[in-house]
Amino acid sequence: MKNKEAYHHGNLQKALLYEGLKTLGQKGEDGLSLRELAKRCGVSVAAPYAHFKNKDEFIYALQDEVMRKLVEKLEITRTKYCEEKSILIEMGMSYVLYFVENPHHFSLLFSKSEHVQAVLWQEDSGKNPAFDELRKAAEPILSHFGVPQVAQHNILLAMWALVHGLAAIVCLHDIASRLREDPEALHSLRNILTVFSGPEPQ
Amino acid sequence: MKNKEAYHHGNLQKALLYEGLKTLGQKGEDGLSLRELAKRCGVSVAAPYAHFKNKDEFIYALQDEVMRKLVEKLEITRTKYCEEKSILIEMGMSYVLYFVENPHHFSLLFSKSEHVQAVLWQEDSGKNPAFDELRKAAEPILSHFGVPQVAQHNILLAMWALVHGLAAIVCLHDIASRLREDPEALHSLRNILTVFSGPEPQ
Repeated sequence: MKNKEAYHHGNLQKALLYEGLKTLGQKGEDGLSLRELAKRCGVSVAAPYAHFKNKDEFIYALQDEVMRKLVEKLEITRTKYCEEKSILIEMGMSYVLYFVENPHHFSLLFSKSEHVQAVLWQEDSGKNPAFDELRKAAEPILSHFGVPQVAQHNILLAMWALVHGLAAIVCLHDIASRLREDPEALHSLRNILTVFSGPEPQ
Repeated sequence: MKNKEAYHHGNLQKALLYEGLKTLGQKGEDGLSLRELAKRCGVSVAAPYAHFKNKDEFIYALQDEVMRKLVEKLEITRTKYCEEKSILIEMGMSYVLYFVENPHHFSLLFSKSEHVQAVLWQEDSGKNPAFDELRKAAEPILSHFGVPQVAQHNILLAMWALVHGLAAIVCLHDIASRLREDPEALHSLRNILTVFSGPEPQ
């Protein structure tokens, strides 16, 4: 990504997001500065403003990028374990492991976005595509076991809050690195998700 | 708390913690400065160091204070709903509502502490007294329904992760204030916790 010419031909936006995610991993959200990112991309400090009105707009674009990556991972898992009994455990693991690999993405994704509000108050389900992936995996199972519609929604929210809680936990200081290095620790995490192994038939 | 004399008679430590929690609610964790708190308490900037070696030590003391308040709330709920079927829902609500009332306490409590590690790796259960309260409420119920020991531990961790996840969510921008003002929103939250209404007999 050192080719200055390439940015002049329409890739600067992509390059800024790429450098933004890299900086986030190294320095956290406070380390994000459009001026600094412009320097890293080898362009003038004014250049980013051709693509992003201000830093907030850049952060929103970065959130979209993170959400896209998370959803991609969840979608792969959903397709792979489709019709398997363990699909809900695998979906939960995928959600949590995304943040084990990218602990800085958690606060970025949820700090200024409407992703949580969308799910909690059901105001616009399309606003949280990660939740929608969990829903797509869980609904056929819950329906199969005859769980009524209203209960389904509460169970879905509970599942989401659980993996969201685990994600919040794994992003804390030193926990993600231990999970990356210690298979035993990862195993404990997986055990927690066995509560997802399926509801009893009604 | 304006009586300078009182601090000279051993209350400065308490006064600093009191002002610390107040500042946290107004300005967040970044607004905490021992120099500023000393000023608020009407003592010299050096005075706090008679009680706290440095800011980190002050933060740890503040975490203990927050944990004490949270546990107190959970203990009251546990005693009140002891032997009631809804005890797990009520315990979950108490945990979450503590952070609805005190959204700034969440990141303070979990940012630099070992409370999460203690629970996740079972390294020292005594280190997270809030989890211990949830455990004390849930164990008799899980045992009553014949849930085996290992499964009990995983269910407990899942319950804790769920309320922890909800707490993380309610501390996000604007969500706590909506929950404080909108009974309907609070009702949705309670519904999520109905997944706690008790396991099926084995």
